Amino acid sequence: MISKEQIAEDYRQIQDEICAGLEQLDGVAKFQQEIWERDGGGGGRTRIIQQGNILEKGGVNFSAVEGKLPEPVKKAFKVDSDDFFATGVSIVIHPNHPWVPIIHMNIRYFEMNEKVRWFGGGIDLTPHYVIPEDATFFHQSLKNVCDRFHTDFYHRFKLWADEYFYIKHRQETRGVGGVFYDRLNPDSAGITWEEIFSFSKELGRSFVPIYSEIVNRNRNKSFTQEEKDWQYQRRSRYAEFNLVYDAGTKFGLETNGRIESILMSLPPQANWVYDFKPLAGSLEEQTLNFLKMGINWV
Amino acid sequence: MISKEQIAEDYRQIQDEICAGLEQLDGVAKFQQEIWERDGGGGGRTRIIQQGNILEKGGVNFSAVEGKLPEPVKKAFKVDSDDFFATGVSIVIHPNHPWVPIIHMNIRYFEMNEKVRWFGGGIDLTPHYVIPEDATFFHQSLKNVCDRFHTDFYHRFKLWADEYFYIKHRQETRGVGGVFYDRLNPDSAGITWEEIFSFSKELGRSFVPIYSEIVNRNRNKSFTQEEKDWQYQRRSRYAEFNLVYDAGTKFGLETNGRIESILMSLPPQANWVYDFKPLAGSLEEQTLNFLKMGINWV
Repeated sequence: MISKEQIAEDYRQIQDEICAGLEQLDGVAKFQQEIWERDGGGGGRTRIIQQGNILEKGGVNFSAVEGKLPEPVKKAFKVDSDDFFATGVSIVIHPNHPWVPIIHMNIRYFEMNEKVRWFGGGIDLTPHYVIPEDATFFHQSLKNVCDRFHTDFYHRFKLWADEYFYIKHRQETRGVGGVFYDRLNPDSAGITWEEIFSFSKELGRSFVPIYSEIVNRNRNKSFTQEEKDWQYQRRSRYAEFNLVYDAGTKFGLETNGRIESILMSLPPQANWVYDFKPLAGSLEEQTLNFLKMGINWV
Repeated sequence: MISKEQIAEDYRQIQDEICAGLEQLDGVAKFQQEIWERDGGGGGRTRIIQQGNILEKGGVNFSAVEGKLPEPVKKAFKVDSDDFFATGVSIVIHPNHPWVPIIHMNIRYFEMNEKVRWFGGGIDLTPHYVIPEDATFFHQSLKNVCDRFHTDFYHRFKLWADEYFYIKHRQETRGVGGVFYDRLNPDSAGITWEEIFSFSKELGRSFVPIYSEIVNRNRNKSFTQEEKDWQYQRRSRYAEFNLVYDAGTKFGLETNGRIESILMSLPPQANWVYDFKPLAGSLEEQTLNFLKMGINWV
């Protein structure tokens, strides 16, 4: 088994690569870095990009934290040991353009002791307007990464993402999904620790080429104020998901993480409009019809 | 003991009075009503006011719902019976003016059977900029209502509000507090059921005169774009509290309530700015210094 130090080191490297790739994609804005330490142990490097040419607000965070698990987290994880170590790279990007999607990526590793350890992660796409061709490209790209490691991965992790990124109280998915996996170990994955680790790194490294392609397909489209307003509304659903359901956010809040790093995922501006109903046949209605579980994009 | 029908009837009447009072205060906008029924039993009257002269987005909701409690709520309430009845009036107002505060009021009654029943409620104020004189007026007004029923009420319920409206992950209170009480019955209150019910109604009826006074003190002040931006940031904290901590919101989401009625409390526009730090000595910094537990406003 690879050491936790090695995992953290490789993840840190991936953070560097992704930040460089996103700066190139944006062409204007640069990441600002904040190095922080956690009271209970460990720390991280938060990198935020703001008011770019296309990237309005985004974060690419690396952290490697350790310490004692608080009771609620122990219960949620069904573990009774106290000490934990967790490292990962976590990304959320809010573009300024309503036709360019929000994206989220996360790769992470967690361990408590020799027996309890796992990898988790995923990538998912949240278009303000769903463009089927882009959703298909996105899923096909993820499938290509998955297929190199296990023929079951894409199918399993796509279903998992459908279920995970579901906004129950709205009865809609957060976006067009992607892949999500958690507690992956050789038993559950059917591949070795080394292969799982490689899978997580390849997934991380697929982020920039995939997102760049989707951004470049859409960044020069013109848009209306109505489309911008719709973007702000979709962002409010994103905020609802992250604050009500997201396990990473909960974990961060409960383990006393750095609050500005955890909540960098929240949109620069979100609007809540009372009881908004899209017009029949509108693009907005079409998008809502795509925000469902179980759509096969590839 | 008063019947649940009587309680619902009086609360419905209070909703009418408050809507009339707020329309008069605003002078322009009118409430739109939505009557809804709940799948599991009961329903409500949601009333929303939008884009008014001063009231940008506000809701005054009445509901009386009944049915079977879902498991997570039973656990949270530590009850093992299944059937419940709940009625209440719930208000959140987001004004368009950064110097006029957000306000929230709720009066409610819950019962499961003859033994398990209680009143709950409260009023609390969330200024974007804390004005100490207004906070003192607000608290003194609430104390006047409380003192007519029990000399301990204000002190107890003010402390309760301080604790309840605390945004733990931000280490700040949602606003300047107010009063909050829950599970009030003759044993815990030291007064009769009839008196508790009267207290809840007097609190409800104090809402319009108190808020009108505070609105009228501030509505004609001029403000800058920077103050408006700060308002959007404070609203994002309000959204965080409601989505992460608020028990009423959780109860609504878990009992399959009408989602647009529950989430009418969310602001029309909220902005998340990464790691905002107010300037030393600024009005924004002064406000943050007032967002603490344990300040005695009267």
